[in-house]
Amino acid sequence: MVNNKPPEGAEKPDSKKALKKEAKKAEKAAKKAEHKGTFLQNESSISEEGDVSSGKYGNLPLIRSDTTASIRKFTYVKELNKSLSDRIVWVRARLHTVRARGKQCFIVLRQREFTVQVLINVSDTVSKSMVKFSSNIPKESIVDLEAKVVEAPAGVAACSQREVELVATQIWVVSSSAPQLPLQIEDASRPEKPDDEEGLNIRVNQDTRLDNRVLDLRTPTNQAIFRIEAGVCRLFREILTKKGFVEIHTPKIIPAASEGGANVFTVSYFKGSAYLAQSPQLYKQMAIAADFEKVFTVGAVFRAEDSNTHRHLTEFVGLDLEMAFHYHYHEVMLTIGDLFTEIFKGLRDQYTTEIAIVGQQFSAEPFTFLDPPLVLQYPQARKMLAEAGVEIGEEEDLSTPSEKLLGRLVKAKYDTDFYILDKYPLAVRPFYTMPDPQNPIASNSYDMFMRGEEIISGAQRIHDPEFLTERAKHHGIDISTIASYIDAFKYGCPPHAGGGIGLERVVMLYLGLDNIRKTSMFPRDPKRIAP
Amino acid sequence: MVNNKPPEGAEKPDSKKALKKEAKKAEKAAKKAEHKGTFLQNESSISEEGDVSSGKYGNLPLIRSDTTASIRKFTYVKELNKSLSDRIVWVRARLHTVRARGKQCFIVLRQREFTVQVLINVSDTVSKSMVKFSSNIPKESIVDLEAKVVEAPAGVAACSQREVELVATQIWVVSSSAPQLPLQIEDASRPEKPDDEEGLNIRVNQDTRLDNRVLDLRTPTNQAIFRIEAGVCRLFREILTKKGFVEIHTPKIIPAASEGGANVFTVSYFKGSAYLAQSPQLYKQMAIAADFEKVFTVGAVFRAEDSNTHRHLTEFVGLDLEMAFHYHYHEVMLTIGDLFTEIFKGLRDQYTTEIAIVGQQFSAEPFTFLDPPLVLQYPQARKMLAEAGVEIGEEEDLSTPSEKLLGRLVKAKYDTDFYILDKYPLAVRPFYTMPDPQNPIASNSYDMFMRGEEIISGAQRIHDPEFLTERAKHHGIDISTIASYIDAFKYGCPPHAGGGIGLERVVMLYLGLDNIRKTSMFPRDPKRIAP
Repeated sequence: MVNNKPPEGAEKPDSKKALKKEAKKAEKAAKKAEHKGTFLQNESSISEEGDVSSGKYGNLPLIRSDTTASIRKFTYVKELNKSLSDRIVWVRARLHTVRARGKQCFIVLRQREFTVQVLINVSDTVSKSMVKFSSNIPKESIVDLEAKVVEAPAGVAACSQREVELVATQIWVVSSSAPQLPLQIEDASRPEKPDDEEGLNIRVNQDTRLDNRVLDLRTPTNQAIFRIEAGVCRLFREILTKKGFVEIHTPKIIPAASEGGANVFTVSYFKGSAYLAQSPQLYKQMAIAADFEKVFTVGAVFRAEDSNTHRHLTEFVGLDLEMAFHYHYHEVMLTIGDLFTEIFKGLRDQYTTEIAIVGQQFSAEPFTFLDPPLVLQYPQARKMLAEAGVEIGEEEDLSTPSEKLLGRLVKAKYDTDFYILDKYPLAVRPFYTMPDPQNPIASNSYDMFMRGEEIISGAQRIHDPEFLTERAKHHGIDISTIASYIDAFKYGCPPHAGGGIGLERVVMLYLGLDNIRKTSMFPRDPKRIAP
Repeated sequence: MVNNKPPEGAEKPDSKKALKKEAKKAEKAAKKAEHKGTFLQNESSISEEGDVSSGKYGNLPLIRSDTTASIRKFTYVKELNKSLSDRIVWVRARLHTVRARGKQCFIVLRQREFTVQVLINVSDTVSKSMVKFSSNIPKESIVDLEAKVVEAPAGVAACSQREVELVATQIWVVSSSAPQLPLQIEDASRPEKPDDEEGLNIRVNQDTRLDNRVLDLRTPTNQAIFRIEAGVCRLFREILTKKGFVEIHTPKIIPAASEGGANVFTVSYFKGSAYLAQSPQLYKQMAIAADFEKVFTVGAVFRAEDSNTHRHLTEFVGLDLEMAFHYHYHEVMLTIGDLFTEIFKGLRDQYTTEIAIVGQQFSAEPFTFLDPPLVLQYPQARKMLAEAGVEIGEEEDLSTPSEKLLGRLVKAKYDTDFYILDKYPLAVRPFYTMPDPQNPIASNSYDMFMRGEEIISGAQRIHDPEFLTERAKHHGIDISTIASYIDAFKYGCPPHAGGGIGLERVVMLYLGLDNIRKTSMFPRDPKRIAP
């Protein structure tokens, strides 16, 4: 058993002074390492003569797929636990932090969301030079480490792998990081709590994060967020495929700007020009008219909207679906509701670890939902808001603040963060929305909400070309501009409904995050198209 | 048992005269139906007084999700077989063809890839008016049919459901088609065989098909092709997810044109401009540098190339993957090879029906593959070509004709339609390709082929910023233009390799089709961006 307490001074590792000192040290070390040369030389050890650790540490030559390279089996950091005690393992991971003190060097290795403590002690087989070399490896470098797994009965509080630590016997740098980091992973990973005074000083601001996204994405939270996002996508597709949906791919380059041409990006297309699709809706509907019956598509959606808010992106991932029904659009609406229930269950059951990791940095109340989901009618929502002092006209849309208030009222009354709002006023929906057959001011349309924010808007679409023409005229739309849309329904089309979901918004709201840029790997907004 | 022979004259249903006559008749009928009014009236039957079939046929009012609508359970056409004999079923499907003769009316109903024959006979319960009404329904209309399932011992050769036919008791038009069709589904579905003389006269040309894609997509072949395409996508993701890959989403709007700016579409972006991504490569590599280890992404890829060939599109679906490896890029190359083997097995086992349907119209030899896949070295390929009389320089790329010839040679020698060609000359690969460590003219790169056409190009990428800079300079690239790309590797990056697959090309070549427009639902090329 070894001492698993970090050296003194490690208690406040994040004071600015300490960071600066460290960076300088690291820079020096890196320069030295660089000088000794690595990547095109065969010499792979920088140890000196008489070094007992000779051949046990150094910089590896650049891995160029030399067939002569020794092949080792590596253990994942997340697999390191008591069951491996006293075993010798090889780990390839990042050097998260390093602190040297005299004859000891403490390293934290990080791999994705997981960290483990490593101890390098001067001993019969570990030389001073090896400890010195280790303590000079720049943070974020990738190293190959040979080590003995040792139980840590007191627990390693600072690491995800608390049961064990590693006692190093070899350490090799596989890929060296520049010594100066534009952001510290520790800072970018620190919990952000509203009442955390210390926290306020050491947050990494969003632009710094996004400018240096390759580093920022390495935080355990980001590793977890984007695994959850992949999960939402996977669940969306798996659930719909089981329900008989067919995946389709719709073009992003389109000939005409839909719905009047506002908020559309223009593309130069050979000698002419084209537009970027704001939605795959026309194509989904064409697939329905072409007998695919139930379709979904996952892909980029573009909005040239100059909205600089916490929830708008100019490019996002649309999870879209469209479905023929027999008699009533509720066949579709409830399919979508059920889809969400299944996604929420899948996330809760399959992403427990990831959700907890995100929660450690950005705390949020766990997401609640009902099975089957709550369905409210628009007039009910108006009544609830009126009782809370907010009057909404019967043909008026909900403002964003009203939506949020409604979300709180629904949560208080029904204890759910997800619900469906059915029967929107006809006046606030697009021309292709099917009017309610009984109530002239209502329509066969619905929105769905997570934590009081809209995440999908959908409706029964008009599938009859004559009625569609009539409704378009009623909206003052020049029929000639939408002729090809109307023509899609000319040769027989089943009644159908559908909707489009914003992936990043679902992940943001599920996790209770405050900004959609946290759930887009490389976000695009009016002011940012890089990296 | 009923007579299941179609009426006389149906033997040659496709003579132009017959078609014209039919169209005229249909037009008349449709006008009449229209006159009788449907979509905003409640009257739903057009039967006359004293009609024994009164209330058993007619045009349904437009389905607007009236809660009062009667809810029936429908049977899928593909489920209609002997086990349902003598049962009464409801079917909602398209009227594929209709032929009347005296007191009989023969209908073929079509649903996706499946067809069934329907007989409507004047009888005690079926009036002359009902038969007349049925025979006047425009082709491609959607109808609700109540019918008795009856065994057809002689078999119905013209339909997919050969064991049974339906004897109608009710027929209602749900959505009426315009009577004049710009293409006939029967023509668009007819087998195209090189030696089929009759066939040559009645093919639908590609532009007519694409201009009227909603109709064209209704053919059994197209129903099958796009289900297979969805299958390739699903298998790609499922197999990689099982192997520990994480799905990511990469931006399509990018700040700088990669690799010099040729063949890139420009987008106007608020007050500035941006470009459409030709490949997600930089972003996949950033995800690797950001510790996601193994990633894949499925999404639109744009090429502003003025290539009007059978295999180029300006927008296609990229199946991209990137993977960190430990020692040798073959870890990745063989993962991709294995991925293809699994996809081919999945298609063969799960899409037997669909593959057969496509084969009926466009015959092709079944796709062959080896498990594990064949890996050839570039020098071996040069030797095989030289033996066949085609000399390729050792630093020269393969031309498209050479690739095709090589495909035939490989097929003859190894009996496989899929193989991997490893170790391309360094001179013909991009600057970021890792040179071979032993052979100065070779590189750590590979292409993979299906039926002699390239479907993925991949390589080990240089993960060291200094070496990358050196190689870029060697290629005469202005370093300042790729600074952000190089910076991605500045803070430590594992060795990695990957590649990008064109989805439409894989489906085209797997099925042995002759044009990529057959496997893109709404293809984009230099001359087409509609519908």
